[in-house]
This record gives sequence, structure tokens and C-alpha cells, in this order.
Amino acid sequence: MIQPKHTYADYGTDFPNSRKLHVVGSRPDIRVPMREIRLGDTRKASGEEAENPPVVVYDTSGPVTDPGHVPDLEKGLPRLREGWIEERGDTELLAARGFRSGDDGRGQDAGRIPFRGSGMVRRARPGRNVTQMHYARQGIVTPEMEFIALRENLGRQEAFEKIYCRSEHETGLLREAQTAGMRHPNHQHPGQAWGARIPGLITPEFVRDEVAAGRAIIPANINHPEAEPMVIGRSFLVKINANIGNSAVSSSIGEEVEKVQWATLWGADTIMDLSTGQNIHDTREWNLRNCPVPVGTVPIYQALQKVGDRPEDLTWELFRDTLVEQAEQGVDYFTIHAGVRLRYVPMTAQRVCGIVSRGGSIMAKWCVAHHKESFLYAHFEEICEICRQYDVALSLGDGMRPGAIADANDEAQLGELETLGELTQIAWKHDVQVMIEGPGHVPLQAVKENMDWELAACHEAPFYTLGPLTTDIAPGYDHITSGIGAANIGWYGCAMLCYVTPKEHLGLPDKEDVKRGVITYKIAAHAADLAKGFPGAQIRDNALSKARFEFRWEDQFNLALDPVTARAYHDATLPAEEAKTAHFCSMCGPKFCSMRISEDVRQYAAEQGIPDAEAIGYGMREKSREFAEQGGGLYT
Amino acid sequence: MIQPKHTYADYGTDFPNSRKLHVVGSRPDIRVPMREIRLGDTRKASGEEAENPPVVVYDTSGPVTDPGHVPDLEKGLPRLREGWIEERGDTELLAARGFRSGDDGRGQDAGRIPFRGSGMVRRARPGRNVTQMHYARQGIVTPEMEFIALRENLGRQEAFEKIYCRSEHETGLLREAQTAGMRHPNHQHPGQAWGARIPGLITPEFVRDEVAAGRAIIPANINHPEAEPMVIGRSFLVKINANIGNSAVSSSIGEEVEKVQWATLWGADTIMDLSTGQNIHDTREWNLRNCPVPVGTVPIYQALQKVGDRPEDLTWELFRDTLVEQAEQGVDYFTIHAGVRLRYVPMTAQRVCGIVSRGGSIMAKWCVAHHKESFLYAHFEEICEICRQYDVALSLGDGMRPGAIADANDEAQLGELETLGELTQIAWKHDVQVMIEGPGHVPLQAVKENMDWELAACHEAPFYTLGPLTTDIAPGYDHITSGIGAANIGWYGCAMLCYVTPKEHLGLPDKEDVKRGVITYKIAAHAADLAKGFPGAQIRDNALSKARFEFRWEDQFNLALDPVTARAYHDATLPAEEAKTAHFCSMCGPKFCSMRISEDVRQYAAEQGIPDAEAIGYGMREKSREFAEQGGGLYT
Repeated sequence: MIQPKHTYADYGTDFPNSRKLHVVGSRPDIRVPMREIRLGDTRKASGEEAENPPVVVYDTSGPVTDPGHVPDLEKGLPRLREGWIEERGDTELLAARGFRSGDDGRGQDAGRIPFRGSGMVRRARPGRNVTQMHYARQGIVTPEMEFIALRENLGRQEAFEKIYCRSEHETGLLREAQTAGMRHPNHQHPGQAWGARIPGLITPEFVRDEVAAGRAIIPANINHPEAEPMVIGRSFLVKINANIGNSAVSSSIGEEVEKVQWATLWGADTIMDLSTGQNIHDTREWNLRNCPVPVGTVPIYQALQKVGDRPEDLTWELFRDTLVEQAEQGVDYFTIHAGVRLRYVPMTAQRVCGIVSRGGSIMAKWCVAHHKESFLYAHFEEICEICRQYDVALSLGDGMRPGAIADANDEAQLGELETLGELTQIAWKHDVQVMIEGPGHVPLQAVKENMDWELAACHEAPFYTLGPLTTDIAPGYDHITSGIGAANIGWYGCAMLCYVTPKEHLGLPDKEDVKRGVITYKIAAHAADLAKGFPGAQIRDNALSKARFEFRWEDQFNLALDPVTARAYHDATLPAEEAKTAHFCSMCGPKFCSMRISEDVRQYAAEQGIPDAEAIGYGMREKSREFAEQGGGLYT
Repeated sequence: MIQPKHTYADYGTDFPNSRKLHVVGSRPDIRVPMREIRLGDTRKASGEEAENPPVVVYDTSGPVTDPGHVPDLEKGLPRLREGWIEERGDTELLAARGFRSGDDGRGQDAGRIPFRGSGMVRRARPGRNVTQMHYARQGIVTPEMEFIALRENLGRQEAFEKIYCRSEHETGLLREAQTAGMRHPNHQHPGQAWGARIPGLITPEFVRDEVAAGRAIIPANINHPEAEPMVIGRSFLVKINANIGNSAVSSSIGEEVEKVQWATLWGADTIMDLSTGQNIHDTREWNLRNCPVPVGTVPIYQALQKVGDRPEDLTWELFRDTLVEQAEQGVDYFTIHAGVRLRYVPMTAQRVCGIVSRGGSIMAKWCVAHHKESFLYAHFEEICEICRQYDVALSLGDGMRPGAIADANDEAQLGELETLGELTQIAWKHDVQVMIEGPGHVPLQAVKENMDWELAACHEAPFYTLGPLTTDIAPGYDHITSGIGAANIGWYGCAMLCYVTPKEHLGLPDKEDVKRGVITYKIAAHAADLAKGFPGAQIRDNALSKARFEFRWEDQFNLALDPVTARAYHDATLPAEEAKTAHFCSMCGPKFCSMRISEDVRQYAAEQGIPDAEAIGYGMREKSREFAEQGGGLYT
């Protein structure tokens, strides 16, 4: 089925020794992008050289890293999915609503920098439903689903042959299994224990079934054909989102598109455009036309601008029009805080940090001002009607999320979660895809119950959390306080992690902050994938560890999530070019190296035969079980 | 009992609005250092101003931040514990062994920069045992134990009055309980569930009992009276260690002492001097005389230098002499890899990364070369004999720790852990304090079993782990990959976390790296303390969240683990001085702010009365329990 098409790409200096690879599916226009990291040879003690197979990794950078791609922001990216959408024959082209006076806020029509498009947009023909969930429930495997299946397998079908055939002769069966990313025999408690069942091979049919059941979503607006299909669900690789967007205080269109490209280069799986400043309509258009991953928004932000930042002036009609405006532009998922019900609002009165969700507070203000249920809740079925015509997924916002450790898991948060569960079932009635947003600030011991509650209350719809931050005391380092919570909740089953940058709570992230946020969240997501026992996830760890053991410094850098920083740090201590091939490091120096004694050890092991090691491992497990059964042991 | 003595100290620009506080115990020479962070007033909607009580935090910076302290590295720090040690009457002064030719390595005697001391050192009188464990087992509460008890309560006795009396009138009983750092009623699964029992108030007797039982240690060499007493055990605050030390490649004495001061300023609870380069004897002396926290070493590193970096030339006699040399200098704990037994060595032959512990590989090489059990294992009782004469704690090294995700929890690691359990019991026979070192590289789902195995195999001796790193793919960010593992294992019961800097695997940390490593590990330790439900831990989170909610920017910065960085990040977006008092931030801009609607909400809540919220929380928990009982729900 898969015919990898080797084409050399240009990742510039960001990913040295990498090239773009396209794995081709059952039809020639299913071309799944991957990044292949080529490695150096292993020089054995005997002087012989052994090749190391390349490592293939998931790639979100889009066509900009394709060989021969001519960057042209004004043209936008190629429209990868256009043919698939057209051939389904369930959509039609219409004149776009486009920009209308006031879309950027009252009196802000001047100084526009419009993107020059065709002026036409796509919508479902009357009575048709164009969501991936709808197709899935009809039993249809879409090209999007096949694309995703290939993507989630991390190039393993192609990699299997290469990796297996070569390493078998080199290191014996055990090592081979490890290199292939299978779980170490001693690793217990794989993530499957938390309720997900991840197959050894992700098939297109599996993708379809997960989407049909609502356990996964494919955000894929028919007006954003530039986006490469991806899936969000706990039986798949954990995804990360990067927030960008201008604000009333700072930033320009050029900077925002640059951040989109930058964030996806380093690994953002989706982008949320949270603009609240000027040029909100055009910024979104430029971002969408140049974004290779799904784009989410919080439409109420723009709606609020349209009414001069007075929440009480918001109306359903104005909000509805904003949804259509954005759906036509191609937004792939809408964050909608329809779970903020009137009765939850007073529950936040005693909180340390009140309501911290911007969308949540807008709706709370509206509810309190009008003393009635919000128009989002009241008109939820109509929102679903819009979504199904464009395939916009719903990301049900957690307007009541805690903004402090002290406020975590309180009644306001839990009450809203129950409502989100009700709304999920309404959306599913319309075959509209749904994910659920989650906190926020949660101490470590309470993270798992957040995940469990979400699965229980929201019928296993994918969870999408911000962090959570596991302490409040480290502003400036909230990528880390939240990365800890994110890794844990990803392991417990969270499907997508919204990044937090070092600037969180303090200022607007610049390019460097965006990168640090993305890399931190790639770490969290990958730690979760390993813990879940996701097939193939460990290939990269093993390849990097082998490179480390063999002092292949360049390979260590190139296999890293951030080769630039890894190399710079090595240079800081040992800048000489020879140090990059040296069989020592700055920690122990050249005289004695821990890892160099391995040859002695291996020779000794061969002479002695390997003792019955399994028995030891077994004994420990027995002991630990007994200890646990005694309820923690010696204290009793 | 406690009479806080308010004295203004100078934390310079690193901790603005902080001052040194000494809480005085039952005798005037028990003066426990704390840092008090003074806060600004809350401006209420009514225009009234309300005072915010200061927040008192654990302080490891030592006398350098005392008011009036005149820094003099040549003199060293004041000898805080000297009187306590003297009055016990169980030690005697002897002429120091001092420096001997060859101590720094063969032919490296030249170019010394000796510390000018008295030339005298202290040792137990013949037949006496001077360990804190020995005293504890006699039922004695030492001044060290009382000091620790006051320290672990985070100044709460003093803070209680202030915090309680004032906030009662302000925010009612619930908020008061939260401000006092008690657990939120909705927080389930406190860390106590993992087997530790943390009392509401840490008493000197509790400290004594934990030390007597071997569940905690007080590293306190009688020749390091400069160190302020601290405890390592899972019923106490989670501690962090910072490694410093020169290497064959780089660094000087001045740089090392500067790193000691720098690391303890930001919060390192202990320092390990891992020097392997020149001037190893003198570097250690300068560090010890200027270090306000316990210092650990790996004596085999120096022993190896003495034999010209040839492990096979090591002998028990040479190692024994090195232990005496270092014990006389005042090293508080020795990492000794006595668990590296001959039979475990071949078990590492098939690993991806072999043996990565430097001490472990030295001993493995020795064992293989001589084909017999190591002299560390064979002479372990004699090692204990030395330790009890100076009160050097043992940190039993994990020579077989995994250096890659692929090697985690294998038979070599587990086999060694069993041996460490045997050695623990031997040490305890001598009343020698013991902690156990742990990995390393461990995927997230296998972290807890590491902790459980350690408790089971090592009879609840405190665990002291390096990270663990939860993935191998992010060199340059291993403070984060390991911070994730560290927070988790701290929550599960690990007593001390050895920091990892961003330079790990790549180069030697500079000052900035040391700071980033320390702050990351303070985050991990604090996240664990919160998760354990440690009394008082949440005070700082709550104070910072309150400051955040009230837009007291300066207080937010000052309460942060790193005020300098927090302020700099705020300045990056909103540099104007007025922005520091502005009631908005750069995220939402000045027009609409989520947090500002709280007044509306509180008014509404007062009108409506608060609904029966508990019922909702209860319902969720029921639902989640049912879900768990169904084994993960809809898949079945």
C-alpha cells in the first residue's frame, strides 16, 4: 500500500540532516508528510562500520519544508484537500460573506490588509452534512482518515523493513524489539490501562470507528483545504496546540503568520488564533491561508469587539453572523462556552481567582446582566446546524475553569462539565464533532480525577486541556509548571494539550517563547505517548540513546526535538569541531568515561553467561506487591 | 516557644521586598532562618485598603543574606552548630590529616590555593557514636532536630496569628482555610495515601522519631558546623540537590564557590561537589567552609584521580584514606556504590546505554578486572565505622541506574536495589544514616513502581533520585524532561530530587544553567508538596493567586520563585512603570478583563444565595466511580 517517495527537502539549519518524505497511500493524492532524520554510521571496536537506519518522525511543518516549495504568503499554501472535498459532491460554492464594516470592531475598518482570495467559499448543499463524523457513521473511510492512519504509524511500515532487517544481525532479538519501539518487557501499567485501546497498527478503519464513536475528532473545515488531516483522540498520539494571535496591546499580521510557521515547524499540531486586537478578520484570513494545521478560534472574542467590548450588548444574531464569517474563512474548530449556565456563575463568587476564562467571563457577565441563560446555551442546536455545513468541530469551552490551585475541581467547574456532557450529546445528534476543554490550574494529585470526570461526564469525547499548571508560584516558568501537569493528563488520556509559554500570566509570547512553549509541550506529549505505550513512540528515544552511547554527537543533536539548542549547549563547553566526534564528554573528561567500559563488560558477560535475571525482577515485583498490600508497610 | 526576631536583611535585587527573619527556638542559639516576603495592600472597590499578611518561605541562602553579614570567603561562614556539637561532649579535636601529596591526583600538587583553617578537626571519642540517628534512637531531641521542626513548619506558628486574625474578617471561614494552606475540600487523594503520614504540625519529637526509624536523615557532619540543619524524608518537605564541581575540562575554585552561593540563594537544599579536575581537595574545602547546606560527594571520584584514572588500581586502603580525608573536611554525605556486585555487571551487557553511573562503571571495571566483589561491598562495615565517627550519612549509589528509557527498571537496576536494602540494614546496625539513590531515565508509567520498589527493598530509607527523565529525545531541555519525572516521584514519596540542568548530556552548567536547574526542581518539589498535602505548602500559591486576581503585579513578581525573570517578562510587553499597577494585562488589554467582572458576580451571588453546590460535586464523583468500575466505559 505504501510507496514512500523520497524527495529531499530543506529544513534549513533548524533540522540538520533531515529531509521531507511523503508516504503515498492508496491513491496518489494521499501523500503523508514525514521528516526523515538520517544518521551516521556506528564505528565498531573492530573498526568495521555499521549503518544506522534513519528515524522517521511526525511532521507538522507543512509544504514550506517541501523540496522546491516557493514561499508565497499572498498565494497561500496548496489546497491539499480540495479535490477530496469536491469529489464528495455534497458541497457548493457561494459568494463569500467576506469582510463587513464593523467586523474588526466599531470604527476599526481603516488600515486593512486584506488577503486577495477568490471571493468564493464552500458550504454543504442544502440538507447535507459534511462532517467527518457523519461520513464515519455512514461507514465511509475518507481520504482524510487514510491520511491520518498513515501519519499516526510514524512511518513504521516503511521503517519496519529497514529497522528490522538491519538490526537483527547486529544486536539480537531483544535489542531489536526495543529499537522497534516496542515496550520494554519490564514496563508495567501501559496507558491502555486507563481505558483506551491502542492497536499495534493504526488502520484507516480504526480512525473511522473512533471518529464515529465520538472518541476522536478530525478538525477539517471544508474551507481550510490547506490543512493536512490530523486526529485528536486518546487512542492516538497526544497532540499539542499553540496559541497565537494579536491583542489590543501588541503584534501585527506579519508577526502572526510568522508565528504560525514557526510553531508548526517545531511541532504544533493545531493553532488557535486568539486575536483580540485590530485587523482581526484579515489576520485570521492570512493565518488560515498559510497554516498547514487546523486552526481554532474563540468566536466570542470577535463578537465582543463588534459590540465595543460590552458583553451585555452581545446578541445571538450577531454571534451567529460571526460564526458564519469564521466558518466561511475556514476555521476548523470553535471554542464555545455554552456550558456557562446562569446557576454556575454565583458558585465562583468565593473563589480566590474568580472566573479566569475570558470567554467564560464574557458569558457570565451577559448572563448576570440579563438574568437569563446564555444565548449560546439557548441556541446550541443552531450552532450545530452551522457546524455541520462546514465541518467545524466544537471545542466546548471551560468557562468555569480554575485559575488557581485553590479553586481546582470546585463545584462551578464540575457543574459546567456536566453541562458540557449534555451538549456533547446534542452535537453528536447532528454528527458534529466535539472535544471538551479543561483546566487550567490543578494540583498533581487531582489531575487524574479531572480526566476521569471528563470521560465519565462527556461520554469519552476527547479532552483538550490547558496544562494544567501544578503550582501557582512560578510565573516566568509556567511552561514547566504546566508541562508537568500536561504530561500526566496526557498519560491519563487527554487527547490534546494546549501549550503554555514562559510568558503566561506576564506578557505576550514572542517567537522564542512560542518555540519554548512548543518544545516543552512536545516533551509532555511524548512522555505521555511513551507512558501510554503508543506503538513506535520509543523508536526515537532508542535511536537517540544509542547515538549517545556511541558518542555520535551529531546524531544526538539531530534526533533532538531542538537540534539547534542541543548543539549550542555542547558548543558552549567544547566548541572545537573535533569534540563532535570525540569519544568523551565534558562531564567526565577524556581520561575515564563510564560508557567506554561497556566493551569490558560485554566481554565479561560473554565469558560468564548471563545469569537468570528474570527471577530478580520477579522477586522485586512480589515484594512491592506485598508492600502495597500492607498499605504502605512499616508505618502500620 | 517561638519568638520571631525581625531583622532586615539584604536579598539585593534577587528577592525584592524580602527580608531575613529568624525564628528563635527553645534556646537563643536555635535561630531558624526564613525569608519573609512583604506584600502590598489590597485596594477594595470601596476605596478602602486592606493589608495582606507577609508570606514566610523556607530559606537556604545561609548567613550571606543576614543583615550586617560581611562576606569573607577566606574566613568562611559562622560555625552555627559548633556549640551544640561541643556540648554533647562525645567528640575530640585532633590534628587534621589535611592535604597530602597526591590527593589531587598523581603529579598535581602544584598550583594549590589552600584554605587557611585551624588545622584541627573533630572526631568521635573512641567508642562513641555521634550520628543524629544514634541520638534519636536514645530518645534525644538534638538542637538540630528542633531547628528542623521549626524550619519545616514554614514559619506557620508565627504566620498563623497574623494570617488568621486578619483574614477572618475579610473573606469568611472558607477563604481563611484556603489562605492558611489547608487542602481544598474537593482535593482527593492526598499524598498520605502513598504511605507517609505527615502531621499537621512538625514537632521536634516527630523529627526524632522519623530519624530513629531510618525514614529520614539529617546530614550533619560534625566538621561542617556551618551547615544549617535540614531533614530528608518523605514526611517532610521535598528537598532538592544541586550538583556543582569542576571537571577535567573546565572551571576554577572561585567559580565553584560562586555556584554554591548562587544555588543556595535560589533554593538548593544540599550541594554535591562532584569535582573531578584539579585542586579537588582545596575546591572541596573552600566549598564546605562557605556552604550553608549539607555537602555530598562521591569519594570514588577522588580516589580514581589518586590512581591515575585506572579503576583496576583502586584499593580499599586508598579508598579508606580518601573517606577519612573527606570526612575530616566535613562532607555530610558520601555517595558510595557498594551495591555494584559482580553478578549484576553482566546484566548490563545488553542495555542500550550500558552503565552510565560514573561511580558504577568505576566499580564494575574494578570487579571485572579482579573478578571479585568490590572492596566497597566487602568492607562496608568499616565504611560505617568511619561514618559514625563523623556523622557522615550514606547515600547508597545506584551504579546500575538506567541511562535510557529502554533500560529502565531492568534486572541490573533491581538487583542492585535489593543489595542496597541489605546494606541499609547493616548501616542501621551502626546507627549510620542512609538514603538510597535512584534513577535516572524512567518512562512516566514506571515511575511509581520505582518508588514502591525502593520503599519495599530498602525498608523505607529515604529515596533520592536523579530526575527521572521521562524521555530521551530532548537534550537541551532535560531539566524539563526530568522535572516531570521528579514532580511525580516526589509526590509518590521521594525525599530529595537531584536537579538536572539544561546542559545535561551536553556540557557543564554555567551560573544561568544552575539557576534554571534549581528553579525547575523547586517547581517539581513544590508541586509534590502540594500533592502530598503538606501543611502550609499552599499558602504561597494562594497568596500569589490573590495578588494575581487583584492585579498587585509587584507582589506577583515578589512571591514568584524567580522574581527577576517574572518582572523581566512583564517588562518585555508592558515596560511602563504604570503597567505595574494597571488593572489589566497584555493578554486581554485594557478594555475587557475576565477578572474584573468578579464584582458583578459577587453581587449577583449575594442576591441569589449560593445554590447547593456540594450535591453537584458528589454526583460527579459517583459518576466517575461508576465509570472506573466499568473498566473505562464505552469500550466494553
